[in-house]
Amino acid sequence: MTDIAPGLLPEGLHDRLPPEAESAATLLRAVMDATATHGYERVQPPLAEFEANLVGRLKSTRQQDLLRFVDPVSQRTLALRPDMTAQVGRIATTRMAGTARPLRLAYGGAVLKVRGTQLRPEREMLQTGVELIGSDTVAAVAEVLRVALDALEAAGVTGVSVDLTLPNLVEALAAGPMPLAADKVPELQACLDGKDAAGLTALGADAYQPLIAAAGPIDQALKRLRTLNAGDVIEERLDAVSILADGLRNRVGVTLDPTERHGFEYQSWIGFSLFGEGIPGEIGRGGSYTIVHADGREEKAVGFSIYLDPLVSAGLGRSERRRVFLPLGTDESVAAGLRAQGWATVAAISQGCNGTKLGCTHQWNGLEAAPL
Amino acid sequence: MTDIAPGLLPEGLHDRLPPEAESAATLLRAVMDATATHGYERVQPPLAEFEANLVGRLKSTRQQDLLRFVDPVSQRTLALRPDMTAQVGRIATTRMAGTARPLRLAYGGAVLKVRGTQLRPEREMLQTGVELIGSDTVAAVAEVLRVALDALEAAGVTGVSVDLTLPNLVEALAAGPMPLAADKVPELQACLDGKDAAGLTALGADAYQPLIAAAGPIDQALKRLRTLNAGDVIEERLDAVSILADGLRNRVGVTLDPTERHGFEYQSWIGFSLFGEGIPGEIGRGGSYTIVHADGREEKAVGFSIYLDPLVSAGLGRSERRRVFLPLGTDESVAAGLRAQGWATVAAISQGCNGTKLGCTHQWNGLEAAPL
Repeated sequence: MTDIAPGLLPEGLHDRLPPEAESAATLLRAVMDATATHGYERVQPPLAEFEANLVGRLKSTRQQDLLRFVDPVSQRTLALRPDMTAQVGRIATTRMAGTARPLRLAYGGAVLKVRGTQLRPEREMLQTGVELIGSDTVAAVAEVLRVALDALEAAGVTGVSVDLTLPNLVEALAAGPMPLAADKVPELQACLDGKDAAGLTALGADAYQPLIAAAGPIDQALKRLRTLNAGDVIEERLDAVSILADGLRNRVGVTLDPTERHGFEYQSWIGFSLFGEGIPGEIGRGGSYTIVHADGREEKAVGFSIYLDPLVSAGLGRSERRRVFLPLGTDESVAAGLRAQGWATVAAISQGCNGTKLGCTHQWNGLEAAPL
Repeated sequence: MTDIAPGLLPEGLHDRLPPEAESAATLLRAVMDATATHGYERVQPPLAEFEANLVGRLKSTRQQDLLRFVDPVSQRTLALRPDMTAQVGRIATTRMAGTARPLRLAYGGAVLKVRGTQLRPEREMLQTGVELIGSDTVAAVAEVLRVALDALEAAGVTGVSVDLTLPNLVEALAAGPMPLAADKVPELQACLDGKDAAGLTALGADAYQPLIAAAGPIDQALKRLRTLNAGDVIEERLDAVSILADGLRNRVGVTLDPTERHGFEYQSWIGFSLFGEGIPGEIGRGGSYTIVHADGREEKAVGFSIYLDPLVSAGLGRSERRRVFLPLGTDESVAAGLRAQGWATVAAISQGCNGTKLGCTHQWNGLEAAPL
């Protein structure tokens, strides 16, 4: 084993230094406070669990994406959580199975993956969000979207837009009003993902052409989708989306991409992605889904997750605390008074201490905090 | 591999449910805010590092105490941090080696160990604290003690007491004014640990008898230790302890156990344990120590750590947020107004929702939040 430089960290793992470490904490605090005002109560699952339990509940992570280790105590394979939503689902269906529904839970903490993505190479990420368990109605989804927008606002994200999607629409259409053999559905979805109109024709699925054209601003999308002759399967969803859009449009931009499935494989009737000005890529996502109890009972749910690291990178969460240097001999009651006024006091502990070098903008001169 | 019950967690790993999860976050926030007002800036190292780097810096944790795994990306053995102070030391001596001293850093986050202790069987714990890097003078230690007391006060801990210790005193005495062969020092220390007066006599170390009698309330302890005829080695330390005690005695109880070494093996001239009323065992500890740069350069430092879980268990950090139930059809502007007033709003999303069952104490009646 060759030496590893003492300051070196494994790929995808990083220190957050000042002021970013504080920003991350500030953002998490802002999001959790916003969710708490909507009645979401915090749960804090452990960083590691039995791999078998974690894999069984993970919605979009495969076993090979997990950081695993053999626990010397239990002699079992444990895995670090790559996502907290599966753990919240476990809590909701076990220790909180008897708690009144809808159960509103919030969470925030570190998650770890084997590999990051090209856009986001970090392997340790700060994930936060909520799950509303016991319902996936329009009212439930509308609430979760409202909480998500309040959370992003509290975090200082501006220029927010929401991209809605209908994850199980294509399957429902193919199985019903716009029939297509089940074994052709994957090809159909590939054509829709690629906006491949010619492919749809070749597949004998021209009825699906309006789905390609529909993606875009919500009003135009809804109008185009209304032209699909597909009865309740589409009308119910469009009515629901229309209600959701009405709740969103006065606050944020809304688009609809009815066939977008990437990352929504486990969502049921509705999914959404959250975007913010100046932040590359998606900053959060969510939607409706089903959780399964140990006895096989299914329960509807809806939730959202936000990853805070891109917000930190975009400079959000910065709180400038004024730093005042206290020369040697400054009375402790003076120092306490300045702290009570919101100053960070930086006390000299020897003649050599220098306020400017220690990041102070002010210095106590015996009477007041004077600019340095 | 037999089945694992879906709700089962590995030994020593737990979910924090409402309200404890929120309490833990509230306590961490309180401590970090208190340290920030003293100019300590937060760093957030990753949950896992190269084992080799972590082991090299760990002060009191051995390799077999680490939860380790092979990272599929680097093909190296990584370890989950069992302690954050070693990581803060790494940051201070690498990426922040060039930052002005004294360097004041704060940290808070989860740590994981292979095994808990009998008193504290948890393997995942929430650790927080500060490190002041670049000095271990009396002024530096006094500041760190003051920050620790402010942090405990902010966390709501009452009846705090500080037990001071002089970790390297016995070694220094044996090597100097109260000579004893180096190979007999471990036996000497065992006698002192066991308050074994007869053992000291048998060892020909009667000169050390006053150290046994001295442990206790600070003034009495200092008085008894002054009777040791050991020159500067003891006088310097007692003068320093006397100054530290003067800074503490108006806020908290202070004791001195001059030979206590358990858990202070890596501390230099001063160590301390923190206790609080109604909380079993030690709630925090700290002291002076030496960190080593990659080039061999040594730097003095002082810090403290608090583990927040016992505080959560003792019921600290609880913040009762008033919960008001909003019947179906309550206007969103009413809801927003209530949230702005500090209420947690719990909105009905169907006719079946019941405010009392959902933990609400109040219900919006169209005019006001009325008690349920």
